[in-house]
Amino acid sequence: MSFAPVYLDWNATTPLDAQVREAMLPWLGAAEPVRFGNASSRHEYGRQARSAIDEARARVAAAVGAHATEVIFTSGGSEANNLFLKGAAACLKPGAVAISAIEHPCVREPARQLRRTGWSMTEIAVDAQGVIDAAAWAEALRARPALVSVMLANNETGVLQDIASLAVEARAAGAWFHSDAVQALGKVELDFRALGVNAMTLSAHKVGGPLGAGALVVDKRVELAPLIAGGGQERGLRSGTENVAAIVGFGVACEQASARRAAQAQRLAQLRDEIESGLAALGATVFSRAAQRLPNTIFFAVDNIDGETLVGKLDRAGFACASGSACSSAQPEPSHTLLAMGVDPLVARGAVRVSLGHGTTADEVGRFAGTLSRVVEELKTLASVAG
Amino acid sequence: MSFAPVYLDWNATTPLDAQVREAMLPWLGAAEPVRFGNASSRHEYGRQARSAIDEARARVAAAVGAHATEVIFTSGGSEANNLFLKGAAACLKPGAVAISAIEHPCVREPARQLRRTGWSMTEIAVDAQGVIDAAAWAEALRARPALVSVMLANNETGVLQDIASLAVEARAAGAWFHSDAVQALGKVELDFRALGVNAMTLSAHKVGGPLGAGALVVDKRVELAPLIAGGGQERGLRSGTENVAAIVGFGVACEQASARRAAQAQRLAQLRDEIESGLAALGATVFSRAAQRLPNTIFFAVDNIDGETLVGKLDRAGFACASGSACSSAQPEPSHTLLAMGVDPLVARGAVRVSLGHGTTADEVGRFAGTLSRVVEELKTLASVAG
Repeated sequence: MSFAPVYLDWNATTPLDAQVREAMLPWLGAAEPVRFGNASSRHEYGRQARSAIDEARARVAAAVGAHATEVIFTSGGSEANNLFLKGAAACLKPGAVAISAIEHPCVREPARQLRRTGWSMTEIAVDAQGVIDAAAWAEALRARPALVSVMLANNETGVLQDIASLAVEARAAGAWFHSDAVQALGKVELDFRALGVNAMTLSAHKVGGPLGAGALVVDKRVELAPLIAGGGQERGLRSGTENVAAIVGFGVACEQASARRAAQAQRLAQLRDEIESGLAALGATVFSRAAQRLPNTIFFAVDNIDGETLVGKLDRAGFACASGSACSSAQPEPSHTLLAMGVDPLVARGAVRVSLGHGTTADEVGRFAGTLSRVVEELKTLASVAG
Repeated sequence: MSFAPVYLDWNATTPLDAQVREAMLPWLGAAEPVRFGNASSRHEYGRQARSAIDEARARVAAAVGAHATEVIFTSGGSEANNLFLKGAAACLKPGAVAISAIEHPCVREPARQLRRTGWSMTEIAVDAQGVIDAAAWAEALRARPALVSVMLANNETGVLQDIASLAVEARAAGAWFHSDAVQALGKVELDFRALGVNAMTLSAHKVGGPLGAGALVVDKRVELAPLIAGGGQERGLRSGTENVAAIVGFGVACEQASARRAAQAQRLAQLRDEIESGLAALGATVFSRAAQRLPNTIFFAVDNIDGETLVGKLDRAGFACASGSACSSAQPEPSHTLLAMGVDPLVARGAVRVSLGHGTTADEVGRFAGTLSRVVEELKTLASVAG
């Protein structure tokens, strides 16, 4: 797969897989047999839509070791995270919610919103590598939180948490345990039962699926109030006419991502290591290098070089990378994740994220390493002249 | 446009317009120039996505006489309705919310949910034609509701409310006034300023656009808390990576719907009248016939014939219509709208909705009228034999 510029921002979003597109096009009237319909309609069009959604639900469930009935389709990961936190809180007496200090804003912000309705909110500290701090974790559980949310893989550093162990402990302490697995899907093995979480969030567009589809996979013991109430779709937990094309695409994307996961993980880890060797030669800091990480993600900084500037230079040189988190709107503040790891804000301002995907080629990585080296040296020279 | 079976359920959802599809395909990698990207990314891919969203926002705003900055994109109409009711309520002290008795469930259910947080909820009665009852309206306003929501066009009967007058009165009484305009868009003239509402809801898939896109058009004086909090997209009012393809399609769909509205309204009203003449000959009741209605919608019942049965017969004969509201999941209860109009539940169980669209042809309507007549006579004979 070749794009111009070279796309190295797969954690932000991914191009649509060919097989996903092929499955979606009939639902957009762009391939035979043309399909459309409101899945609630009780005529031929509606039945076809319902059947396509059922099939997609089975595919998503199979990819993550869940039952189809545990999959609630949403418009994406942000909605699924909000649904869990607000939906579960609405069914409980106000209590404590604990989240890690490195959650995506779509977990952090709804958790903060709960404070308006009488909840207390704790952010659980991480260590210098970005891993949940054991003492902070134990302390958070002593407060008997009703809801706990810890992401499986961090979107910026790629750090993996030991969710299976955390889930056991959180549940033993009486919490409903949720994990945002958006960045983990398709990159590491993901099994709802083995993880033992009560709920987890998935998103289609991070794994070659379309924007507009995600899911909350949820244990039926968790009582949830719908965030979007109305016609009663998705077992009454998410109303709104189902986005059939996107859901169909999500199903195929999960299947494809599962099928290629192991091989891609090995291949991408090698390409990542190649980039990281080059970074070491440039004297760059690679964040969370000592932690268990996703195979595709590199988060780094070069002393005295601003991340935005470096990303801008790389963009003009034909390589698309991210500075800080690309999921947020324009925010000039340094990465919340790095600050939580105790990284000096001046160093954090230099952060650049390179994230690879199944379409990334060895040639692209080779060219990127060369350009990165050249651009960094140029910026260093400028900095020393300015200094 | 020809489908098999003949599609007469345009109020449930619509096939994608050719021009909409053309605009979307590059964003799905199915046409040149291939486009994709997270609109928050600060590289070439992200900038292209951002620019496409800006353009779509201007198109949607232009179609409804609003400023682009007043358009908040959502995943659809249900989300927009929930955003208004829950989002505005979260910024106010608990008070009274008043909605019409014939709202879509995605207005009624969130309004009911507000009762959990200390709000009182009133449903404003309608008359036998389905028009807001003047005395009930005056009484509702005397309770000084903080939030009022009345739909512009009913999805089942097609009845239009005098929203401009209601908005003036509701606002004078101190309320934020919202209107669900999902069924009105593209069928009647729609001008945010002229209506004088504080907020209104739109949906793409009812006007030839894709599933997965809608909007809350909202006066900036209305303070809203986000339903989906997170990365801060859509002025902080709707987080989540923007569904670029769907938003682009929504923009084009609004433009197309506006361009053809007047001509189609006239043409569809004639086809509707033709079907209604046939229904009169069959002794059917056409609901809300004396009210101002959408030009494309016919809601009727034939005495002693069950609506589900009739729709099933028509489906097998090659015509896709709706019984009751197609937007809801399986609900065997008679139409909430008809019950609010004081229609006998036994009569309401016979309700069938036929809704036409720009792709509906005179030939299709002619064939439908013939089949309807034949099927009704068959069912009448069966009923009389059974009787």
